[in-house]
Amino acid sequence: MLIVNVFVHVKPEFIEEFRIATIENARNSVKEPGITRFDVLQDFGDQEKFLLVEVYKTHNDSAKHKETRHYKKWSQTVMKMMAEPRRSVKYANIYPNEGG
Amino acid sequence: MLIVNVFVHVKPEFIEEFRIATIENARNSVKEPGITRFDVLQDFGDQEKFLLVEVYKTHNDSAKHKETRHYKKWSQTVMKMMAEPRRSVKYANIYPNEGG
Repeated sequence: MLIVNVFVHVKPEFIEEFRIATIENARNSVKEPGITRFDVLQDFGDQEKFLLVEVYKTHNDSAKHKETRHYKKWSQTVMKMMAEPRRSVKYANIYPNEGG
Repeated sequence: MLIVNVFVHVKPEFIEEFRIATIENARNSVKEPGITRFDVLQDFGDQEKFLLVEVYKTHNDSAKHKETRHYKKWSQTVMKMMAEPRRSVKYANIYPNEGG
């Protein structure tokens, strides 16, 4: 299992548009066979900051996701909304493990 | 729902001890009625970096967690293992929502 956390900083005028575009992307992403979860979180203290938590079955499924139509559409749509480049961190799950 | 992400940087000599202590804390924490999930992740690229993802039903449940015996024990145990102070960020869930 691979967890990819994508840290996003959005320009203030695009907060609502970003939410809408990203929820649509998440709804489509969770239908991919290689995706277990695709959570969209918003920072309580700073509404311009979002976190996408993408849980993939394998590393390869992360690459496949970037080839989907919904990812490409989302990526194009939010390009102008970014206040700074997105930063992503890859994690391994320690607890719970694969069975949990 | 409240998601608290705790970013942890551990001294290299304590990586294994930290994993063990933190898994024990997570196992006890998920038994708390106010905790939905308590995930422990380790950075693929930098094994000294961990992320605790704590999902609480309400803000108050986050305060209650800090009063538990297992939290206090963990907090004491890992104190010497920290390479730098822990940093936590509070998030609201946008997708999936409370029903999802």
